[in-house]
Amino acid sequence: MNAAVSVWRRLPLFVLASSLCLCLSRAEDSAMENIVTEKKAEESHRQDSADLLIFILLLTLTILTIWLFKHRRFRFLHETGLAMIYGLLVGVVLRYAIHVPSNMNNVTLSCNVNASPATLLMNVSGKFYEYTLKGEIGANEVNDIQDNEMLRKVTFDPEVFFNILLPPIIFHAGYSLKRRHFFRNLGSILVYAFVGTVVSCFIIGLLMYGCVTLMKQIGQLGGDFFFTDCLFFGAIVSATDPVTVLAIFNELHVDSDLYALLFGESVLNDAVAVVLSSSIVAYQPEGDNTHTFEAMAMLKSFGIFLGVFSGSFALGVATGVVTALISFTGSLLSLTPFHVTKFTKLRDLPLLETALFFLMSWSTFLLAEACGFTGVVAVLFCGMTQAHYTFNNLSPESQDRTKQLFELLNFLAENFIFSYMGLTLFTFQNHVFNPIFIVGAFLAVFLGRAANIYPLSFLLNLGRKNKISPNFQHMMMFAGLRGAMTFALSIRDTATYARQMMFSTTLLVVFFTVWICGGGTTQMLSCQKIRVGVDADQENTIGPDGVECRSTKHESAWPFRIWYNFDHNYLKPILTHSGPPLTATLPTCCGPLARCLTSPQAYENEGQLKDDDSDLILNDGDINLTYGDITVSTDATGAHTSGTAVGGVAVNSDEALDRELAFGDHELVIRGTRLVLPMDDSEPPLPLDSHRHRHKYETMS
Amino acid sequence: MNAAVSVWRRLPLFVLASSLCLCLSRAEDSAMENIVTEKKAEESHRQDSADLLIFILLLTLTILTIWLFKHRRFRFLHETGLAMIYGLLVGVVLRYAIHVPSNMNNVTLSCNVNASPATLLMNVSGKFYEYTLKGEIGANEVNDIQDNEMLRKVTFDPEVFFNILLPPIIFHAGYSLKRRHFFRNLGSILVYAFVGTVVSCFIIGLLMYGCVTLMKQIGQLGGDFFFTDCLFFGAIVSATDPVTVLAIFNELHVDSDLYALLFGESVLNDAVAVVLSSSIVAYQPEGDNTHTFEAMAMLKSFGIFLGVFSGSFALGVATGVVTALISFTGSLLSLTPFHVTKFTKLRDLPLLETALFFLMSWSTFLLAEACGFTGVVAVLFCGMTQAHYTFNNLSPESQDRTKQLFELLNFLAENFIFSYMGLTLFTFQNHVFNPIFIVGAFLAVFLGRAANIYPLSFLLNLGRKNKISPNFQHMMMFAGLRGAMTFALSIRDTATYARQMMFSTTLLVVFFTVWICGGGTTQMLSCQKIRVGVDADQENTIGPDGVECRSTKHESAWPFRIWYNFDHNYLKPILTHSGPPLTATLPTCCGPLARCLTSPQAYENEGQLKDDDSDLILNDGDINLTYGDITVSTDATGAHTSGTAVGGVAVNSDEALDRELAFGDHELVIRGTRLVLPMDDSEPPLPLDSHRHRHKYETMS
Repeated sequence: MNAAVSVWRRLPLFVLASSLCLCLSRAEDSAMENIVTEKKAEESHRQDSADLLIFILLLTLTILTIWLFKHRRFRFLHETGLAMIYGLLVGVVLRYAIHVPSNMNNVTLSCNVNASPATLLMNVSGKFYEYTLKGEIGANEVNDIQDNEMLRKVTFDPEVFFNILLPPIIFHAGYSLKRRHFFRNLGSILVYAFVGTVVSCFIIGLLMYGCVTLMKQIGQLGGDFFFTDCLFFGAIVSATDPVTVLAIFNELHVDSDLYALLFGESVLNDAVAVVLSSSIVAYQPEGDNTHTFEAMAMLKSFGIFLGVFSGSFALGVATGVVTALISFTGSLLSLTPFHVTKFTKLRDLPLLETALFFLMSWSTFLLAEACGFTGVVAVLFCGMTQAHYTFNNLSPESQDRTKQLFELLNFLAENFIFSYMGLTLFTFQNHVFNPIFIVGAFLAVFLGRAANIYPLSFLLNLGRKNKISPNFQHMMMFAGLRGAMTFALSIRDTATYARQMMFSTTLLVVFFTVWICGGGTTQMLSCQKIRVGVDADQENTIGPDGVECRSTKHESAWPFRIWYNFDHNYLKPILTHSGPPLTATLPTCCGPLARCLTSPQAYENEGQLKDDDSDLILNDGDINLTYGDITVSTDATGAHTSGTAVGGVAVNSDEALDRELAFGDHELVIRGTRLVLPMDDSEPPLPLDSHRHRHKYETMS
Repeated sequence: MNAAVSVWRRLPLFVLASSLCLCLSRAEDSAMENIVTEKKAEESHRQDSADLLIFILLLTLTILTIWLFKHRRFRFLHETGLAMIYGLLVGVVLRYAIHVPSNMNNVTLSCNVNASPATLLMNVSGKFYEYTLKGEIGANEVNDIQDNEMLRKVTFDPEVFFNILLPPIIFHAGYSLKRRHFFRNLGSILVYAFVGTVVSCFIIGLLMYGCVTLMKQIGQLGGDFFFTDCLFFGAIVSATDPVTVLAIFNELHVDSDLYALLFGESVLNDAVAVVLSSSIVAYQPEGDNTHTFEAMAMLKSFGIFLGVFSGSFALGVATGVVTALISFTGSLLSLTPFHVTKFTKLRDLPLLETALFFLMSWSTFLLAEACGFTGVVAVLFCGMTQAHYTFNNLSPESQDRTKQLFELLNFLAENFIFSYMGLTLFTFQNHVFNPIFIVGAFLAVFLGRAANIYPLSFLLNLGRKNKISPNFQHMMMFAGLRGAMTFALSIRDTATYARQMMFSTTLLVVFFTVWICGGGTTQMLSCQKIRVGVDADQENTIGPDGVECRSTKHESAWPFRIWYNFDHNYLKPILTHSGPPLTATLPTCCGPLARCLTSPQAYENEGQLKDDDSDLILNDGDINLTYGDITVSTDATGAHTSGTAVGGVAVNSDEALDRELAFGDHELVIRGTRLVLPMDDSEPPLPLDSHRHRHKYETMS
């Protein structure tokens, strides 16, 4: 504890006063003291407002510049990169241009209580003040606190990122997942996300351990750095965040399979990385030396990984299903008055629906955190479930509202995180920049990504009909940007020397990948000769029976197909208004139950196409054409469906799966364009007039 | 300090240990301690998540019940009343059904530092922990903290209400203000809001002082209660919140003037009450006795009132104007590409616009707080300015988005506050229920409201052509509900005995008014024979030249008319695309400046009606018919405009004002119905095809 002693010696300004006896309070001063305290609290509140204002103005500035960029069609810098640059600039100003005289606000107390309580009651001259624990502070930080109060002020509680800013980003990713290509490549995505992230984590961890050992030998290491720290570093920098890349992909209409692979991988590996890093932290061998290898502790960590991941997954899905059930019941309840009095009474419904949807999704996060699972992982799977089931039950207006709401929250949170990243480079007080470690980290990140993509792609290509071509692999390698998740994980704990060095290095990795890899995406695409301007729409209409569809069928392994059939025949009819009625899919012995659970609309679906205004969700009404062949001619993709309807009739047919997945995204493309147009049409989709409505789509597309 | 001493004696569990010397830390225990601390922090985080989850589930339950109520068309209980009931039930459960064994988490330290710092550094066995000041705690509370940790856990930081929950509510009120009837009754509203609130505050304060003096004499008072406390109580219970009443008014289409009077008054008196209460707190006479009357201090308080109110007003308006300017410039910039590439490129625009709008509105709040003004007041006027100018510049989709976003935020915040209110009745630890004080308060609140409404209505009727009839006065008297603002003001400071008694009494006042007055609105309306089912739309088309319009003109005093003309001729053309071009309104000497500032669209406005998709904003395109008479026949309210166009030609004419105000709301009525329909139409409003578009409106209405 030499460090602590020296700190104490260096702190002559601090008041180190405490006593066992009660202080004799000076009653006459109490009113004055009261005012002083109030004034201080007010000042602190003002300061907080001003700090937050800096960020709001930063975001505003970013938005204005993006506006200009979109106008001029700059593509080399994405909004996140821009937000970082602005953050950097403000950080420089705060650090070097503004000087706030340090006011002796902090009082350090020393006492021999044997724990730091969450809540502290201070008896200051007879008055009680309540304090809440903010966290531990490194011994060398104590000195800096006084040095630059203001910089510390603009530093947020790291938990803010995890509990407030990440959830909307992750939920949005799950909610806006493009399903067709995701499911087509599900196997590969899962392999990249699970195996790939673990491989990358261990490769980076091992390389960094070598690097750290080297540093220790040449005396460059200023503190402890264990193998678990290296693994932790590997876990956090394995979370890719291709926000920038995907934005450009979206704009250029890059090949949908590549898009799906990258998006799916990055969404899922965030979840894997966060659980992986927490299981690495949980690695606690028994005995004296806490940093040796021990099989039991290793197994326990592995168990924690599995338990937390599956628990969060189950929780997220469960909340999604509950919301779907509520909205389903709600839509049943309101079905009659909705159609009778639609012009006067139920105007508040979209608001209520949206609020319900929002609250249920948020409660997933809280529930998972309260249960000790990982909130962000639960929120991801909740988002996917909501998109799959609940979205179908919402009114068209609520569908728009929820999408827009989460889009906005995602946008704000993302840009906030990135501009904060830029700021942190200068305002964070405990940076440890070590050249060897940084060079090692960049090398390790590169090799880790390579060890993830190339060998796994090789193995996957053995089983895939639709091979992942070398230029796709290079592109995926290049697109391994690090972003919000990596940052949030690394800033969460910066108490030790090792963590501080990790944090500083991580920041540089994020900056480099976002600016260089993000900015070079367009060049890389043309260099790798990856086709752009692909119209997923066209892809369908040209050859639905061709290679693409075949590959989907063959690639989708039997577990997926079993699940799909179960989902389509039982879950969808129970949770939404779409799908075939349960009476048709359940065995006859379950007749009464099936009748009771099937919604009136499901019967209507049998005979007519349901006009579902979804763009994320499979348009399940269309699956009916394999079930009841009457309505084939009314379909928008008429050529396609009449071509494939030969294989129809059977509910469980594989073609149904292909076609449904294909059609779901076909809708997406049309509506993707539609949704963003302010002068867009959305004529009342009268349920009994779907022919005419369909027709309009045809003329549009 | 006897209380403190006795508290100390009663706290055998607390660890009262501190020393001047450094503790010799036990290195071997540090790892273990570390784990313990981490575990505790994790547990506390879990507990927080669970607590928040309770509220989320409460809100969810409220929403589900409202859904059912809307289905069954219950009108006697509004969602806010319902939220309170659920809150009460959960409060009872938390209080009586759940018992958490008190864990010795808290450590009380005693020391003789002479101030309580905002940040505290604790040196616990060589490790430094950071604590932040949460607030002062009454001596009698210290004991309770240990008694029921859990109840304290569900108690939020009171500042949360002021800084997070109130701003969206207040902003929404300003943003959704129905402008025609508001401006028609502006004079009366201002009198009720300013004079009325001050009168009510002083009447209640005086009555309560009498009550308190009585209590002191019969020995019922357990602590200090000064005259300033009474006035403070008067100020906080003078803020009316007719959420419930207005919801019913909206549903029943109650007379628009009554609606405007109530809504306008309640919106503005919230602002007055919050500034009034802070100036009462700021009343600090010099000298020994801090609770005597002193003219200087009184004047200073009055100065603070004026300064803070006008400062907040100016700030709110300024931010609104800046946002309008930005969005105006933005719409100019994007004008060309928007029309050229609207089907592919600028799809992110509505998102950017909405984000910008949201951030600018929020920054108003922060800026005001950082400057020492009142954030909620600034936000109110910012909302009004945004509705007046910025809204016009937004794309139709952004208009919908911003409306929906703030609607949702308002809904969530409001129901959260009301359910928290219910909860607090049981979970708040320092209730002081004093029967005499409560009875006195109810009487005072009643008399204060009466002293506000009846005398002022009498005085106003002397000047008004369109008298406020006695049954309107009774209805306004009855509709004086107390809600979110009263609660937020009273929970903000519950440190002293007087404040605790006020808080408990305020809670009861809110419960009573929301349940009894809110629930009895329908009965009161029929009892007072106030006409319902009034169609503001019809009102226009029937007699636009009749009594209603005349009264508007005569009632609008010359300062308002001067402002209106200035706004219409100069501000609107500079800040929005509507209004006449500046070249026409500015004197010829300013020609170059005017040409430079006028947007290309303004010239287009001269010849054609602008198809503005606003429902809050005056449809300024229509004012052109007084400017260029050509387009009269294309107007939706054809009968009306051709009837009044005789008075046209002059830009500054009073009829223009009447007609514009009338037309603005006419639009509102149509769209008010339209917006809530999920299967609503909104055919592409082709700018050059406004005739056809107009025509569709006619067929609709």
